[in-house]
Amino acid sequence: MKLFKRSNFFPIKKKYKISYINSLLKDRIIYQNIENNFDLTDISSLKLLRDNSILFLGDELNDKNIKKNNIHVVTTNTNNKKYYKSITIVDNLSDTYNKILNEMYFHDDQLGFKDEFNLINGSYVSIYSKISGSSEIGKNCFIARGVEIGNNSIIKNNVVIKNSIIGDNVVVSDNSSIGTTGFGFDFKIRGSQYINPQIGIVFIDDNVHLGACCTIDRGKIDYTYIGKNSMIDNMVHIGHNTTIGNNACIAAQTGISGSVTIGNNVTIGGKVGFAGHIKIGDNVVIAARSGVTKDIKENSTVAGFPAIDIKEWKKNLIRQKRYGY
Amino acid sequence: MKLFKRSNFFPIKKKYKISYINSLLKDRIIYQNIENNFDLTDISSLKLLRDNSILFLGDELNDKNIKKNNIHVVTTNTNNKKYYKSITIVDNLSDTYNKILNEMYFHDDQLGFKDEFNLINGSYVSIYSKISGSSEIGKNCFIARGVEIGNNSIIKNNVVIKNSIIGDNVVVSDNSSIGTTGFGFDFKIRGSQYINPQIGIVFIDDNVHLGACCTIDRGKIDYTYIGKNSMIDNMVHIGHNTTIGNNACIAAQTGISGSVTIGNNVTIGGKVGFAGHIKIGDNVVIAARSGVTKDIKENSTVAGFPAIDIKEWKKNLIRQKRYGY
Amino acid sequence: MKLFKRSNFFPIKKKYKISYINSLLKDRIIYQNIENNFDLTDISSLKLLRDNSILFLGDELNDKNIKKNNIHVVTTNTNNKKYYKSITIVDNLSDTYNKILNEMYFHDDQLGFKDEFNLINGSYVSIYSKISGSSEIGKNCFIARGVEIGNNSIIKNNVVIKNSIIGDNVVVSDNSSIGTTGFGFDFKIRGSQYINPQIGIVFIDDNVHLGACCTIDRGKIDYTYIGKNSMIDNMVHIGHNTTIGNNACIAAQTGISGSVTIGNNVTIGGKVGFAGHIKIGDNVVIAARSGVTKDIKENSTVAGFPAIDIKEWKKNLIRQKRYGY
Repeated sequence: MKLFKRSNFFPIKKKYKISYINSLLKDRIIYQNIENNFDLTDISSLKLLRDNSILFLGDELNDKNIKKNNIHVVTTNTNNKKYYKSITIVDNLSDTYNKILNEMYFHDDQLGFKDEFNLINGSYVSIYSKISGSSEIGKNCFIARGVEIGNNSIIKNNVVIKNSIIGDNVVVSDNSSIGTTGFGFDFKIRGSQYINPQIGIVFIDDNVHLGACCTIDRGKIDYTYIGKNSMIDNMVHIGHNTTIGNNACIAAQTGISGSVTIGNNVTIGGKVGFAGHIKIGDNVVIAARSGVTKDIKENSTVAGFPAIDIKEWKKNLIRQKRYGY
Repeated sequence: MKLFKRSNFFPIKKKYKISYINSLLKDRIIYQNIENNFDLTDISSLKLLRDNSILFLGDELNDKNIKKNNIHVVTTNTNNKKYYKSITIVDNLSDTYNKILNEMYFHDDQLGFKDEFNLINGSYVSIYSKISGSSEIGKNCFIARGVEIGNNSIIKNNVVIKNSIIGDNVVVSDNSSIGTTGFGFDFKIRGSQYINPQIGIVFIDDNVHLGACCTIDRGKIDYTYIGKNSMIDNMVHIGHNTTIGNNACIAAQTGISGSVTIGNNVTIGGKVGFAGHIKIGDNVVIAARSGVTKDIKENSTVAGFPAIDIKEWKKNLIRQKRYGY
Repeated sequence: MKLFKRSNFFPIKKKYKISYINSLLKDRIIYQNIENNFDLTDISSLKLLRDNSILFLGDELNDKNIKKNNIHVVTTNTNNKKYYKSITIVDNLSDTYNKILNEMYFHDDQLGFKDEFNLINGSYVSIYSKISGSSEIGKNCFIARGVEIGNNSIIKNNVVIKNSIIGDNVVVSDNSSIGTTGFGFDFKIRGSQYINPQIGIVFIDDNVHLGACCTIDRGKIDYTYIGKNSMIDNMVHIGHNTTIGNNACIAAQTGISGSVTIGNNVTIGGKVGFAGHIKIGDNVVIAARSGVTKDIKENSTVAGFPAIDIKEWKKNLIRQKRYGY
């Protein structure tokens, strides 16, 4: 995954010293050590490290040798002290994340509407978007700040695109919404204001066909990614941080939860559901109406709920017929 | 549930004497007694009784001591004679309801389009709506007559809101439709003109987060209600007359039928389906892909289709593995 | 099914001699015989034959006695030689179809946006559409070239209608998309540019009620058809070439694949899925959440996945309860 310029989509309000940010957290802080009180200008993830940023680590330990300048770690795991000299340990990561992100960033719910737009051919296009002249946009669309659309792409009608980079020869069909807010929050603390700010984007690679009435939530910090040549039918939902490889085929009304990793050349039937945070290998085939609850290794064909090898699943059906169970 | 002013959303065409209304029903009428031929100005339900109104009762008996002035009961159950002096007994309630409601009311399909709208910041906003200045509305939205939106709420882009009251700090994401027509009609008589007029509203309480591409049908006579702090993901459908308590969490692509009553602090996974007219208790957890066919008592955790206690469901899966059924 | 004027929706670029079309196919051609090098002006299917057209036959043999003038058959089955004097035999039909159709036609992805539209009452209406004065259209809609809408129909808000003929007294609810591109392509060759051009339409017959957030894909060459008096709930997807009889009732979140044939008076619960290319007889009832994998004969009631007779399905549930599964 390559870096993208976050400020194109989510302008940072101003520069913040670590000490100032920590002053917002008050008694959430269990321990802090600020080796060098630098100006924070971004947020990192372990996948995409950025200079002068905060890295949120949660409970996972990380001894990864970090090549970037000025990373300040905010974590709930005191053992991360071993690895980081610039560190704040807190008692609740979700709330800490919300406090910091809401202070630092305008995210779409706060900013988009105040942007300047041109009404071009019946659609509202942010003056801060970059759309190739060879691409076409239908009517009643909304294209937000930072959005980039490559060559020969077609955005049909009543489409909403925000916080997204769209490649070449991509088709987005009518009434789809791309770059929407991921469904991320601490399940124990509910209410609209507790949604974790989602400051990542959607990256749709070249030659993807996306159907009508689909929703693709943007990444929380990094990407939601759709690989080259992938074919996606109508009413498909793709959750935040999910990455789908090249040449995927996904039939209608399938829903993919957040943080799912899908390999290349995967074929998924209609109405399939996925648990979050699972891995699907290359060349996997998933029968319609399956419920995929755990990792699926490459080259398998699965069916049912929970999804199992399709031969097993068919045997079970035959047994049911024969013995009425 | 508090009363709402129906005429804000559905203007009554004129005042009607009971005798005039009954003259429309002709040979649908089995028996009638008009004690006092008052002017009808509204429709009641047993939950929300209104002065000078018709109460449709169907087959249920009702001996409820009615505190309102001037209630005329229209029912198919002759035994309701015992309880009401102002009563019309008919042989088909759905058709009678349609005849009376279509005569008395403009409902959205007949009026909305003739309304006056302002084009504000790229969205069509009825001059008969009330939107707090602290709330924001994106582009290409449609906000119909009577709609009220409280403080600090965010309506994203390409959203349709009609026949709805929205509280404070509510977020409605892109391409969602709120206050749409419920799927109510006599199954034996099909065709667009036989849909039962839906003259209720949607009430979304404070701090609710609603995802993208959702649909919430308005109540038939009263409310479809979403409780405070509820978090709803993308592509969720909520049927007419359904009420959802506070602090609900509902994952993507779940569908809730009409007249379902859901308690507080309920958590519902993705792709869950509900039969109509069932009750889900407080603190219930429903696993993804469940099909809920009957009432679920408070504090249970269920899974499967038909949904059963999740421990039972898991045992069944283990048995299936062991014995291949 | 009656003929429709394809050029109302998909203008043909110019007249093409068969010999010119074949020159595009190069080494895809295994054999060709051009008895009379006529001008091609349309595309036929076996259901709807048209004069001066190409008929794509694939592997099926066809000895049907063709009444039309000038049919040139393009097929992969060499045995069709027996039946046609004007024939081209190719080694890959999907790719051949794409090459020919992309050469001959503007299909919506290429043309729609260049059309002229009037902004009428907040919606973009093609100057090449025909809408009865007695029908109403809400805000933020897109009505494309060729679309016909009959009398007393209601198109609500943020609706996209293209490549469609809509009858009388039809209701199309908010945020629905009609006439969208079918999910048709050679599964072995993926990428947006390989979608098979879809040059058919959607025909919605009189008195149909269509809910919110639905998608109906147009036919590939002929129709996707919804019969008279059919009632369709929210978030229903209907695939290309599917035909639904009169008086259907389809509950929310059901998905019907491509080329399904559904009879009259069929009732389908919520969240039902259908395999493609199957036949459902008249008066069939399909329980909610069923997965229909094969033909269902008339007057049956089915449930489960794969869908079986509902009595069998219920017996299985009882056995499960009794024996622990």
